Amino acid sequence: MDESTAHEREEGRRFLPRFDDNGLIACITCAADSGRVLMLAYMNEEALRLSLSTGIVHYWSRSRRQLWRKGDSSGQVQTIVEVRTDCDQDALLIKVKVGGDGKACHTGRSSCFYRRLAMGSDEGALVIDPT
Amino acid sequence: MDESTAHEREEGRRFLPRFDDNGLIACITCAADSGRVLMLAYMNEEALRLSLSTGIVHYWSRSRRQLWRKGDSSGQVQTIVEVRTDCDQDALLIKVKVGGDGKACHTGRSSCFYRRLAMGSDEGALVIDPT
Repeated sequence: MDESTAHEREEGRRFLPRFDDNGLIACITCAADSGRVLMLAYMNEEALRLSLSTGIVHYWSRSRRQLWRKGDSSGQVQTIVEVRTDCDQDALLIKVKVGGDGKACHTGRSSCFYRRLAMGSDEGALVIDPT
Repeated sequence: MDESTAHEREEGRRFLPRFDDNGLIACITCAADSGRVLMLAYMNEEALRLSLSTGIVHYWSRSRRQLWRKGDSSGQVQTIVEVRTDCDQDALLIKVKVGGDGKACHTGRSSCFYRRLAMGSDEGALVIDPT
Protein backbone atom coordinates (compact mmCIF):
# COMPACT_ATOMS: atom_id res chain seq x y z
CA MET A 1 0.00 0.00 0.00
CA ASP A 2 1.65 3.27 -1.03
CA GLU A 3 1.45 6.44 1.03
CA SER A 4 -1.35 8.16 -0.88
CA THR A 5 -3.53 5.05 -0.74
CA ALA A 6 -2.82 4.61 2.96
CA HIS A 7 -3.82 8.23 3.61
CA GLU A 8 -6.98 7.87 1.54
CA ARG A 9 -7.93 4.72 3.41
CA GLU A 10 -7.33 6.32 6.79
CA GLU A 11 -8.69 9.83 6.32
CA GLY A 12 -10.88 9.50 3.26
CA ARG A 13 -14.63 9.51 2.96
CA ARG A 14 -14.72 6.52 0.62
CA PHE A 15 -15.56 3.05 1.85
CA LEU A 16 -12.70 0.88 0.57
CA PRO A 17 -12.98 -2.37 2.53
CA ARG A 18 -9.84 -4.46 2.39
CA PHE A 19 -10.39 -8.18 2.09
CA ASP A 20 -7.54 -10.52 3.08
CA ASP A 21 -5.86 -13.20 0.96
CA ASN A 22 -8.85 -15.45 1.58
CA GLY A 23 -11.25 -12.74 0.42
CA LEU A 24 -12.51 -12.07 3.95
CA ILE A 25 -12.88 -9.09 6.25
CA ALA A 26 -13.27 -9.42 10.04
CA CYS A 27 -16.51 -8.12 11.50
CA ILE A 28 -17.10 -7.30 15.16
CA THR A 29 -20.81 -7.37 15.92
CA CYS A 30 -22.17 -5.37 18.87
CA ALA A 31 -25.61 -4.84 20.36
CA ALA A 32 -26.76 -1.39 19.24
CA ASP A 33 -28.46 -0.61 22.55
CA SER A 34 -25.78 -1.68 25.05
CA GLY A 35 -22.65 -1.63 22.85
CA ARG A 36 -21.82 -5.11 24.15
CA VAL A 37 -19.66 -7.23 21.85
CA LEU A 38 -21.72 -10.19 20.66
CA MET A 39 -19.46 -12.05 18.26
CA LEU A 40 -16.60 -11.90 15.79
CA ALA A 41 -17.20 -13.32 12.33
CA TYR A 42 -16.11 -12.79 8.74
CA MET A 43 -17.66 -11.48 5.56
CA ASN A 44 -16.64 -12.02 1.98
CA GLU A 45 -17.51 -9.44 -0.66
CA GLU A 46 -20.91 -11.02 -1.36
CA ALA A 47 -21.84 -11.21 2.33
CA LEU A 48 -20.97 -7.54 2.78
CA ARG A 49 -22.90 -6.54 -0.33
CA LEU A 50 -25.97 -8.50 0.79
CA SER A 51 -25.71 -7.11 4.33
CA LEU A 52 -25.70 -3.55 3.02
CA SER A 53 -28.42 -4.05 0.43
CA THR A 54 -30.82 -5.91 2.74
CA GLY A 55 -29.96 -4.35 6.12
CA ILE A 56 -29.67 -7.88 7.55
CA VAL A 57 -26.25 -9.23 8.50
CA HIS A 58 -24.81 -11.97 6.29
CA TYR A 59 -21.51 -13.64 7.09
CA TRP A 60 -19.18 -16.10 5.42
CA SER A 61 -18.85 -19.25 7.49
CA ARG A 62 -15.22 -20.32 7.38
CA SER A 63 -15.95 -23.76 8.84
CA ARG A 64 -18.91 -24.52 6.57
CA ARG A 65 -17.48 -22.56 3.67
CA GLN A 66 -20.78 -20.98 2.80
CA LEU A 67 -22.70 -17.74 2.88
CA TRP A 68 -24.68 -17.53 6.08
CA ARG A 69 -27.62 -15.26 6.77
CA LYS A 70 -27.42 -15.18 10.56
CA GLY A 71 -30.71 -16.19 12.15
CA ASP A 72 -32.11 -18.19 9.24
CA SER A 73 -32.52 -21.26 11.42
CA SER A 74 -32.53 -19.68 14.90
CA GLY A 75 -34.60 -16.57 14.27
CA GLN A 76 -31.76 -14.51 15.76
CA VAL A 77 -31.66 -12.25 12.73
CA GLN A 78 -29.31 -9.27 13.08
CA THR A 79 -30.73 -6.02 11.73
CA ILE A 80 -28.08 -3.41 10.97
CA VAL A 81 -28.24 -0.15 12.87
CA GLU A 82 -24.77 1.14 12.05
CA VAL A 83 -21.65 0.02 10.17
CA ARG A 84 -18.20 1.34 11.07
CA THR A 85 -14.79 0.69 9.57
CA ASP A 86 -11.39 1.01 11.18
CA CYS A 87 -8.41 3.17 10.23
CA ASP A 88 -6.97 0.85 7.58
CA GLN A 89 -10.38 -0.50 6.56
CA ASP A 90 -9.58 -4.15 7.15
CA ALA A 91 -12.14 -4.61 9.94
CA LEU A 92 -15.79 -3.70 10.44
CA LEU A 93 -17.76 -2.89 13.56
CA ILE A 94 -21.47 -3.48 13.05
CA LYS A 95 -24.11 -2.44 15.56
CA VAL A 96 -27.22 -4.57 15.36
CA LYS A 97 -30.61 -5.21 16.81
CA VAL A 98 -31.02 -8.95 17.40
CA GLY A 99 -34.31 -10.68 16.55
CA GLY A 100 -35.88 -13.84 17.95
CA ASP A 101 -34.87 -14.51 21.55
CA GLY A 102 -32.19 -11.81 21.31
CA LYS A 103 -29.24 -14.16 21.56
CA ALA A 104 -26.23 -14.27 19.27
CA CYS A 105 -24.32 -17.44 20.16
CA HIS A 106 -25.23 -20.91 18.89
CA THR A 107 -24.56 -22.25 22.41
CA GLY A 108 -27.60 -20.33 23.68
CA ARG A 109 -25.78 -17.39 25.21
CA SER A 110 -26.40 -13.74 24.38
CA SER A 111 -22.75 -13.17 23.46
CA CYS A 112 -20.14 -15.63 22.19
CA PHE A 113 -17.68 -14.22 24.74
CA TYR A 114 -19.22 -15.96 27.76
CA ARG A 115 -15.94 -17.14 29.29
CA ARG A 116 -13.15 -15.16 30.86
CA LEU A 117 -9.66 -16.28 31.58
CA ALA A 118 -8.91 -16.68 35.28
CA MET A 119 -5.94 -14.38 35.85
CA GLY A 120 -3.19 -15.16 38.31
CA SER A 121 -2.95 -18.57 39.86
CA ASP A 122 -3.90 -20.67 36.85
CA GLU A 123 -3.58 -18.90 33.55
CA GLY A 124 -5.06 -21.77 31.60
CA ALA A 125 -8.43 -21.84 33.37
CA LEU A 126 -11.63 -20.37 31.96
CA VAL A 127 -14.58 -19.21 34.01
CA ILE A 128 -18.05 -19.26 32.51
CA ASP A 129 -19.23 -15.75 33.23
CA PRO A 130 -21.68 -14.35 30.67
CA THR A 131 -21.43 -10.57 30.40
CA MET B 1 -12.47 -30.73 14.75
CA ASP B 2 -14.35 -33.79 16.06
CA GLU B 3 -17.43 -33.57 18.26
CA SER B 4 -15.75 -34.12 21.62
CA THR B 5 -13.12 -31.51 20.89
CA ALA B 6 -15.76 -29.04 19.72
CA HIS B 7 -17.70 -29.61 22.94
CA GLU B 8 -14.60 -29.19 25.07
CA ARG B 9 -13.71 -25.97 23.30
CA GLU B 10 -17.20 -24.56 23.69
CA GLU B 11 -18.15 -25.66 27.19
CA GLY B 12 -14.83 -26.52 28.75
CA ARG B 13 -12.86 -24.66 31.38
CA ARG B 14 -9.57 -25.00 29.54
CA PHE B 15 -8.12 -22.16 27.52
CA LEU B 16 -7.40 -23.70 24.11
CA PRO B 17 -6.84 -20.74 21.79
CA ARG B 18 -7.08 -21.65 18.13
CA PHE B 19 -4.57 -19.95 15.86
CA ASP B 20 -5.32 -19.80 12.12
CA ASP B 21 -3.18 -21.08 9.25
CA ASN B 22 -0.97 -18.02 9.65
CA GLY B 23 -0.52 -18.71 13.35
CA LEU B 24 -2.72 -15.78 14.37
CA ILE B 25 -5.78 -15.22 16.53
CA ALA B 26 -8.04 -12.15 16.20
CA CYS B 27 -8.23 -9.90 19.24
CA ILE B 28 -10.94 -7.30 19.88
CA THR B 29 -9.67 -4.70 22.32
CA CYS B 30 -12.18 -2.72 24.41
CA ALA B 31 -11.88 0.01 27.02
CA ALA B 32 -12.44 -1.66 30.39
CA ASP B 33 -14.37 1.29 31.81
CA SER B 34 -16.78 2.07 28.96
CA GLY B 35 -16.76 -1.21 27.03
CA ARG B 36 -16.14 0.75 23.86
CA VAL B 37 -14.41 -1.14 21.06
CA LEU B 38 -10.99 0.41 20.49
CA MET B 39 -9.37 -1.75 17.82
CA LEU B 40 -9.08 -5.14 16.19
CA ALA B 41 -5.63 -6.67 15.90
CA TYR B 42 -3.96 -10.06 15.88
CA MET B 43 -1.73 -12.06 18.19
CA ASN B 44 0.54 -14.95 17.46
CA GLU B 45 1.38 -17.47 20.16
CA GLU B 46 4.31 -15.43 21.44
CA ALA B 47 2.31 -12.20 21.58
CA LEU B 48 -0.42 -13.95 23.57
CA ARG B 49 2.09 -15.54 25.93
CA LEU B 50 3.84 -12.22 26.54
CA SER B 51 0.50 -10.42 27.02
CA LEU B 52 -0.55 -12.91 29.69
CA SER B 53 2.80 -13.06 31.46
CA THR B 54 3.35 -9.28 31.57
CA GLY B 55 -0.23 -8.02 31.76
CA ILE B 56 0.56 -5.62 28.89
CA VAL B 57 -0.97 -6.23 25.47
CA HIS B 58 1.39 -7.42 22.73
CA TYR B 59 0.20 -7.93 19.16
CA TRP B 60 1.61 -9.34 15.97
CA SER B 61 1.74 -6.66 13.28
CA ARG B 62 0.69 -8.27 10.01
CA SER B 63 1.92 -5.34 7.91
CA ARG B 64 5.31 -5.00 9.62
CA ARG B 65 5.57 -8.73 10.32
CA GLN B 66 6.85 -8.23 13.82
CA LEU B 67 5.91 -8.50 17.45
CA TRP B 68 4.51 -5.22 18.67
CA ARG B 69 4.18 -4.10 22.27
CA LYS B 70 1.42 -1.54 21.82
CA GLY B 71 2.42 1.85 23.22
CA ASP B 72 6.18 1.40 23.05
CA SER B 73 6.57 4.52 20.92
CA SER B 74 3.28 6.32 21.72
CA GLY B 75 2.98 5.65 25.44
CA GLN B 76 -0.51 4.27 24.81
CA VAL B 77 0.31 1.06 26.65
CA GLN B 78 -2.67 -1.26 27.13
CA THR B 79 -2.84 -2.86 30.56
CA ILE B 80 -5.00 -5.98 30.66
CA VAL B 81 -8.03 -5.94 32.93
CA GLU B 82 -9.82 -9.00 31.52
CA VAL B 83 -9.36 -11.56 28.74
CA ARG B 84 -12.34 -13.39 27.22
CA THR B 85 -12.54 -16.04 24.54
CA ASP B 86 -15.43 -16.88 22.25
CA CYS B 87 -17.35 -20.13 21.83
CA ASP B 88 -14.92 -21.82 19.45
CA GLN B 89 -11.87 -20.08 20.93
CA ASP B 90 -10.66 -18.53 17.70
CA ALA B 91 -11.14 -14.93 18.88
CA LEU B 92 -10.27 -12.97 21.99
CA LEU B 93 -11.95 -10.00 23.65
CA ILE B 94 -9.53 -8.08 25.84
CA LYS B 95 -10.58 -5.30 28.17
CA VAL B 96 -7.81 -2.82 28.82
CA LYS B 97 -6.85 0.36 30.57
CA VAL B 98 -5.03 2.63 28.13
CA GLY B 99 -1.95 4.56 29.23
CA GLY B 100 -0.45 7.81 27.93
CA ASP B 101 -3.04 10.12 26.39
CA GLY B 102 -5.62 7.31 26.51
CA LYS B 103 -5.89 6.88 22.75
CA ALA B 104 -5.68 3.64 20.81
CA CYS B 105 -5.44 4.61 17.14
CA HIS B 106 -2.23 5.70 15.41
CA THR B 107 -4.26 8.44 13.64
CA GLY B 108 -4.74 10.19 17.00
CA ARG B 109 -8.28 9.01 17.70
CA SER B 110 -9.41 7.17 20.81
CA SER B 111 -10.80 4.27 18.78
CA CYS B 112 -9.81 2.99 15.35
CA PHE B 113 -13.51 2.86 14.42
CA TYR B 114 -13.91 6.62 13.94
CA ARG B 115 -15.87 6.43 10.68
CA ARG B 116 -19.35 5.16 10.02
CA LEU B 117 -20.88 4.25 6.73
CA ALA B 118 -23.57 6.67 5.58
CA MET B 119 -26.62 4.47 5.13
CA GLY B 120 -29.19 5.05 2.45
CA SER B 121 -28.49 7.52 -0.29
CA ASP B 122 -24.84 6.79 -0.86
CA GLU B 123 -23.67 3.46 0.48
CA GLY B 124 -20.04 4.13 -0.38
CA ALA B 125 -19.66 7.27 1.73
CA LEU B 126 -17.96 7.37 5.13
CA VAL B 127 -18.63 9.95 7.81
CA ILE B 128 -15.93 10.81 10.32
CA ASP B 129 -17.79 10.45 13.58
CA PRO B 130 -15.65 9.35 16.53
CA THR B 131 -17.65 7.38 19.05
